[in-house]
Amino acid sequence: MILPLFFIFCLFSSSHAAVQDFCVGDLAAPQGPAGYSCKDPSKVTVNDFVFSGLGIPGNTSNLIKAAVTPAFAAQFPGVNGLGISFARLDLAPGGVVPFHTHPGGSEILIVVQGTIYAGFVSSANTVYLKSLKKGDIMVFPQGLLHFQINAGGSVALAFVSFSSPSPGLQILDYALFGNNLPTELVAATTFLDTAQIQKLKGVLGGTG
Amino acid sequence: MILPLFFIFCLFSSSHAAVQDFCVGDLAAPQGPAGYSCKDPSKVTVNDFVFSGLGIPGNTSNLIKAAVTPAFAAQFPGVNGLGISFARLDLAPGGVVPFHTHPGGSEILIVVQGTIYAGFVSSANTVYLKSLKKGDIMVFPQGLLHFQINAGGSVALAFVSFSSPSPGLQILDYALFGNNLPTELVAATTFLDTAQIQKLKGVLGGTG
Amino acid sequence: MILPLFFIFCLFSSSHAAVQDFCVGDLAAPQGPAGYSCKDPSKVTVNDFVFSGLGIPGNTSNLIKAAVTPAFAAQFPGVNGLGISFARLDLAPGGVVPFHTHPGGSEILIVVQGTIYAGFVSSANTVYLKSLKKGDIMVFPQGLLHFQINAGGSVALAFVSFSSPSPGLQILDYALFGNNLPTELVAATTFLDTAQIQKLKGVLGGTG
Amino acid sequence: MILPLFFIFCLFSSSHAAVQDFCVGDLAAPQGPAGYSCKDPSKVTVNDFVFSGLGIPGNTSNLIKAAVTPAFAAQFPGVNGLGISFARLDLAPGGVVPFHTHPGGSEILIVVQGTIYAGFVSSANTVYLKSLKKGDIMVFPQGLLHFQINAGGSVALAFVSFSSPSPGLQILDYALFGNNLPTELVAATTFLDTAQIQKLKGVLGGTG
Amino acid sequence: MILPLFFIFCLFSSSHAAVQDFCVGDLAAPQGPAGYSCKDPSKVTVNDFVFSGLGIPGNTSNLIKAAVTPAFAAQFPGVNGLGISFARLDLAPGGVVPFHTHPGGSEILIVVQGTIYAGFVSSANTVYLKSLKKGDIMVFPQGLLHFQINAGGSVALAFVSFSSPSPGLQILDYALFGNNLPTELVAATTFLDTAQIQKLKGVLGGTG
Amino acid sequence: MILPLFFIFCLFSSSHAAVQDFCVGDLAAPQGPAGYSCKDPSKVTVNDFVFSGLGIPGNTSNLIKAAVTPAFAAQFPGVNGLGISFARLDLAPGGVVPFHTHPGGSEILIVVQGTIYAGFVSSANTVYLKSLKKGDIMVFPQGLLHFQINAGGSVALAFVSFSSPSPGLQILDYALFGNNLPTELVAATTFLDTAQIQKLKGVLGGTG
Repeated sequence: MILPLFFIFCLFSSSHAAVQDFCVGDLAAPQGPAGYSCKDPSKVTVNDFVFSGLGIPGNTSNLIKAAVTPAFAAQFPGVNGLGISFARLDLAPGGVVPFHTHPGGSEILIVVQGTIYAGFVSSANTVYLKSLKKGDIMVFPQGLLHFQINAGGSVALAFVSFSSPSPGLQILDYALFGNNLPTELVAATTFLDTAQIQKLKGVLGGTG
Repeated sequence: MILPLFFIFCLFSSSHAAVQDFCVGDLAAPQGPAGYSCKDPSKVTVNDFVFSGLGIPGNTSNLIKAAVTPAFAAQFPGVNGLGISFARLDLAPGGVVPFHTHPGGSEILIVVQGTIYAGFVSSANTVYLKSLKKGDIMVFPQGLLHFQINAGGSVALAFVSFSSPSPGLQILDYALFGNNLPTELVAATTFLDTAQIQKLKGVLGGTG
Repeated sequence: MILPLFFIFCLFSSSHAAVQDFCVGDLAAPQGPAGYSCKDPSKVTVNDFVFSGLGIPGNTSNLIKAAVTPAFAAQFPGVNGLGISFARLDLAPGGVVPFHTHPGGSEILIVVQGTIYAGFVSSANTVYLKSLKKGDIMVFPQGLLHFQINAGGSVALAFVSFSSPSPGLQILDYALFGNNLPTELVAATTFLDTAQIQKLKGVLGGTG
Repeated sequence: MILPLFFIFCLFSSSHAAVQDFCVGDLAAPQGPAGYSCKDPSKVTVNDFVFSGLGIPGNTSNLIKAAVTPAFAAQFPGVNGLGISFARLDLAPGGVVPFHTHPGGSEILIVVQGTIYAGFVSSANTVYLKSLKKGDIMVFPQGLLHFQINAGGSVALAFVSFSSPSPGLQILDYALFGNNLPTELVAATTFLDTAQIQKLKGVLGGTG
Repeated sequence: MILPLFFIFCLFSSSHAAVQDFCVGDLAAPQGPAGYSCKDPSKVTVNDFVFSGLGIPGNTSNLIKAAVTPAFAAQFPGVNGLGISFARLDLAPGGVVPFHTHPGGSEILIVVQGTIYAGFVSSANTVYLKSLKKGDIMVFPQGLLHFQINAGGSVALAFVSFSSPSPGLQILDYALFGNNLPTELVAATTFLDTAQIQKLKGVLGGTG
Repeated sequence: MILPLFFIFCLFSSSHAAVQDFCVGDLAAPQGPAGYSCKDPSKVTVNDFVFSGLGIPGNTSNLIKAAVTPAFAAQFPGVNGLGISFARLDLAPGGVVPFHTHPGGSEILIVVQGTIYAGFVSSANTVYLKSLKKGDIMVFPQGLLHFQINAGGSVALAFVSFSSPSPGLQILDYALFGNNLPTELVAATTFLDTAQIQKLKGVLGGTG
């Protein structure tokens, strides 16, 4: 008998729940500037809000001895529209995440195992460097160049969170040397020597 | 002859008016994090911007002696994308809108008839209570628990506005006792006694 | 004994409650692009969230037979930062709120008494007109020219809500004829005749 | 061999590049409150980010001796979702862009050739007027009435930028006199004389 | 000799770095709706961007056997204005974080040790429940009621991130029973029995 | 006699005009996450909205033969809070603006004189390159690495606009080689050879 009030709300709530509370991304539907289209809320289950891929160490058997496993909206559609995403960072001894930016969001990193040396450079060209031990967190403001290095002799593990479901990632070396940017153009816009550029293009699979 | 300037603008304006000025919701098209897709602006009429459902008193013949009639984007697609929505609140003598939150927006209430006793609790756990008479307005900040009670002996009428086209509504009792949350789980997460939970589940149609 | 969890939160919550939940405007402190500075939350009371000025009819003994009583952040500091504000509109028989815009927010109007004829013009130059009776609501998208007229023979009363604590108000006649814009300049930028401009400058107290 | 880290990112980046970095508008797909749907990023080329229509003077052989050529999202879909757009303004001697507003964005104008007299009126009804010479820039806050006039004896050229991909444009004369708003209604809501209204309706092609 | 370009930028960048890149909160200065005032950027050091308090387990020797250690803007001013914050969650065996909301942000939780049973309720009153094991993440949309329980026999540890520097926290039991809300009022707005309310007020230190 | 309506609005408008319409930055007052504090609106004049520094060519007598003259909020406080800013770019023959990002905004560039070869790299590592002639505009999405080169034999002039009053600027070479980042650290995080790093540190005045 208490239903009338609740009934009214129940009716309209169930018909547009996705807009109100969440908007699980439908990766196959059109995207817009604010993110993916919403999955039909009647088909959303708790599994849309849970992502299990971060429990497994990434494969660090590579030159940089590092692996990043993202849970951005493209991998974890439950965060679409919610202003947040997550990732796992594995760093073997000697591992490094080279200079990179996230054009779309700020980042907080927490060290869960090992020691990580991290830093960023501001627009004012000031350098902020710190050795982070287990339990330390560091924030990297949106869009600024930053890096992380395993500063100890053992494996390091960190989790990172972003202020956007799709923060983007632009790795400096990859942007300069891992595509078809002509060597001459890279030289002109970075002042690096041609030989240096060609050497790294060779390593990273770049052409031109 | 003054047309050239106007002609240019007229052409482009008419082709994307929905993006510029408004975006009447097309409830049958895909939704995104920012709201419903826009109805074809050439088919938009003034009736898309007008909603007449709030002129009729809601049915308060129920246990809580209250009725809320919403004009959110799902009922009134003209507000889609415009950052605002509206609703009507009827409170019979003794009527109450029990504790609830709007996860997506702040609210302003205006008393049009009768007297309403209203309050909210902040994150700092401070209580803000006030008896509102005809013409008084009160603002309830986004996401905080609040309630409204008919504080007089006659019918009370209020209108409420929200800072979002889809502010959402989570009624505390309904969230705890009106669904399939197991009784044991509710007890563990609220410290309420099992008997109390089962009693209210009975009233509100909850299971588990 | 349950305190430890709560104690931790209680401590930090009380020290920055204003940022979390609300930011009652301190009209005497510096303003920023997002609004007024916040009043010390320890001095905030429920009266900061309540405004009683809208219960009294505005004085419509004027040429336009209309009165608007605002509860924007400058009058009602409790809405500062909350994305919403309110106002009362009184229209005597024959009363009119002439063409105006709100540069900073969309508006919803509800007719509480009488009949109001309202309209707005879009960027695509389409006209949207409607006669609104008691209980009808109409939404006016942000920044577009709109007006309201008492369409009946008796007093009309409406309440309006905005999607901004400080929506602004630019009344067309006042902007053109109520300040020191030179007549020649108004003529050049509106194509109105000089005599017409001077006539209205006389009415509205404009110079130049 | 450095691939593992890069490989992981490359995979997910390419699958949702449009959400991360840009969202070139697909003018044929559904729009939402945040703008057009995104073009498939695999079909995006550099030409989506370049617009060449502003190199050609607009045709100022009209009564106002002015022409505006827009590069808003509807003409230049590359700006969709990026919070910015552009336009070209040509003013022949004696040319004028009459009073208008952009409901959706602020504007910066730079004088590239000639001299332009510009101004805007605030909500507080203060008038801000300035003669701008080559190289000067002026900012016009969102939604406020403003104008530009060729203040010299030669052709003037300006470029304007907006803080929105779809800032909208509402030209005062066109809104009042260039549509089917009844003459009586314009008179009642502007206090202009009926003869004045009919005269300008004649010039601008308005009816009613 | 390459300095001129760099010199120009260096000068202006250093003078307003805080606005551009970050805004470390000055907890002693005025706050606004967007957060704390910025600390003088010339006095900012890397330590403003690092927080070490999350390496220490919270004290779970309490009735709920749980402890939350926040790194919100009030504890970690480096996140001010950056749209993100962090916290640590310790759950002893049998520990529980009772139903609560964050009015100002969405949350992602990652299980680092043990097993956690978590859930939330939507505005449509749908329940989303899941048992999370080490490495699983779950997202809780902004403003919705949710809880976490230690679902295993050993200590559980989780880290949580929020989409706001000041997400707020409203613990249901604390809001209902831990302040001076009169028992009668709680009963009227929750339908709980008076005896139940008084019992929990006794536990949580509430009055009234 | 028409004053009553206008009088009411005039009063409240003049007392908080800065919040409504604009917020000219007071560079000496506290800043917040949303920008500078507002200058007292009663002291604002049209000169706060006009900036004349872009009429003068920058000095390109340097190694990169380029000069950028910004009109960001720090130089042009009138844009504070308005979501837009501007700059002038001079490129002598052979001039280049090396790879850089704007962490806080998207950019549109218009070529006013000469020919400019420009490009950017996306998060998906796709390269977008184009030779721009007079009148062409190109948009560079927020936070992505991009460059501009004088592609002709004569002086080139461009104007650029940003979607933020303080878009920031991070020049890659300056961030890597123009500060005190240790050479070893740059090598580890960029894979550049030590000799290359030291060579560029020498040119750019870096230490370490």
